[in-house]
Amino acid sequence: MPDKEEIISYFQELQDGICARLEAVDGQGRFREDRWQRPEGGGGRTRIIQGRHIAKGGVNFSAVHGPMPGRISRALGLAPGRFLATGVSIVLHPLNPMVPIIHMNVRYFEVQPAGKPETDNIWWFGGGIDLTPHYIDGADARFFHQELKKVCDAHHPDYYPRFKQWADDYFYLRHREETRGVGGIFFDRLGGEDGFSKEERFAFVREVGEAFAPLYAHLLEKHKDEPFGERELAWQNLRRGRYVEFNLVWDKGTRFGLDTDGRTESILMSLPPVANWEYDHRPEEGSPEARTLALLKKGIGWVSHKG
Amino acid sequence: MPDKEEIISYFQELQDGICARLEAVDGQGRFREDRWQRPEGGGGRTRIIQGRHIAKGGVNFSAVHGPMPGRISRALGLAPGRFLATGVSIVLHPLNPMVPIIHMNVRYFEVQPAGKPETDNIWWFGGGIDLTPHYIDGADARFFHQELKKVCDAHHPDYYPRFKQWADDYFYLRHREETRGVGGIFFDRLGGEDGFSKEERFAFVREVGEAFAPLYAHLLEKHKDEPFGERELAWQNLRRGRYVEFNLVWDKGTRFGLDTDGRTESILMSLPPVANWEYDHRPEEGSPEARTLALLKKGIGWVSHKG
Repeated sequence: MPDKEEIISYFQELQDGICARLEAVDGQGRFREDRWQRPEGGGGRTRIIQGRHIAKGGVNFSAVHGPMPGRISRALGLAPGRFLATGVSIVLHPLNPMVPIIHMNVRYFEVQPAGKPETDNIWWFGGGIDLTPHYIDGADARFFHQELKKVCDAHHPDYYPRFKQWADDYFYLRHREETRGVGGIFFDRLGGEDGFSKEERFAFVREVGEAFAPLYAHLLEKHKDEPFGERELAWQNLRRGRYVEFNLVWDKGTRFGLDTDGRTESILMSLPPVANWEYDHRPEEGSPEARTLALLKKGIGWVSHKG
Repeated sequence: MPDKEEIISYFQELQDGICARLEAVDGQGRFREDRWQRPEGGGGRTRIIQGRHIAKGGVNFSAVHGPMPGRISRALGLAPGRFLATGVSIVLHPLNPMVPIIHMNVRYFEVQPAGKPETDNIWWFGGGIDLTPHYIDGADARFFHQELKKVCDAHHPDYYPRFKQWADDYFYLRHREETRGVGGIFFDRLGGEDGFSKEERFAFVREVGEAFAPLYAHLLEKHKDEPFGERELAWQNLRRGRYVEFNLVWDKGTRFGLDTDGRTESILMSLPPVANWEYDHRPEEGSPEARTLALLKKGIGWVSHKG
């Protein structure tokens, strides 16, 4: 059974591999690393890139542990104990508005309830990948979902439909009645229920993590040299404003981090370099911007979407 | 005793007066008005300006009423009943980084508990004004607080110290350990306790509302033609990013509005036209930006501050 040291090491290697691949695809930017420590135990490696194609990106690893703060045990509905939370978290904001924003996270959580032996530990995995195009390209969305479906289907036939819907529900701006983008997959608290072994859960999470770099490399390569102008940049900055709204208002991970005094600069690396807000902006009917807006809905079957 | 119709009418007149004064000071921008209705009862007048000196500003009036939604009664710790919430809410983002951002809100809330006569209604006033300079000017902060203190002192000697501290605590970005700006006053649930009459509370709130336009006109006139360059604009956009963080993460009014399905475009008129985020930005030691950052602390006695 994979122990926490093995999972932590794996997440560090995943971060290394993704950073190397992203530097290669960007062709110019280099990650800057900040190592940080948490006074109560553990720490992280925050890595930030500003490149030729990636305007602002973060690839973070962290592994924090110690006595579980009251806010965390309350939020998770757990009895007091010691905890470990580790994972890799990524957001990339591209320069070219024709390239989508992407987010990926894989994480592992373990709790040793107070007064119990380590063999009684509670554990689970969580994670997700979702894509936020400034302009939705049907072929991209189909490709993205098909690739995620392959990863899921190799582990369980229920994974893709369940986690795709979970992503639709999670990456949702209720105050706008808009999804953040074309969704993807989202899952949480995948433990040993329903006969799943820890090996199986871990293998799935590894494949989600490893799917990320090739997926984004494909989309970046495909669109990075497409022409764009003021109009596309203006729309990109409005969509980035929506990204800010989602992350600061609805994203549980961000709010949890800010509420529990996490490292602010690591948490908020997800925010774009620039965002705009224009009162009551409405794209012109029939425009590419209006077409994108019309597709920011839950429940679209992207794997077989035409157009 | 002022009744709700009188208070609603007053808030509408206040909005009219403030808009007229701001158009005069801006010299170019004109407010665009959107009237909206709430299906369950009431509505509002959202007014937005994009002018020569005010880059983006909103002056909103609303008066909503009806059966109290469960979320509202839970949030306020009240038994079910019918409610009225009315007020004026303002945020102005100036073009020139040497001019501060300002916010003002005055509001009135009334509940008729289910099955009780109107004479048993619970009522209170709330509100506040706070100033968010991109570059703190000691004389401005002193002037601003002295004027607010005059308004408060005319009503009760405890008002200014109490409401000044309340603003320090409220307009605070805990995840940054920064105040939003130089504070001001904030107050909530001012009802009939401690022998205050409704007339007295209303008179105080009126004077807060009426203090706003002359205060901001003075600051805008003083700084609107000051020179600035790329450096000041870059800093302004980073500070606007902090404004976004406060409003979306911590501001109870904004979150309450988004949680209770308020009119999104009216609520988010408070967001700046542009905001920037730069990973781990730190101003150069001894710079004007560093001096401002050092003053974003609670507990500064601005009324007698030197410098």
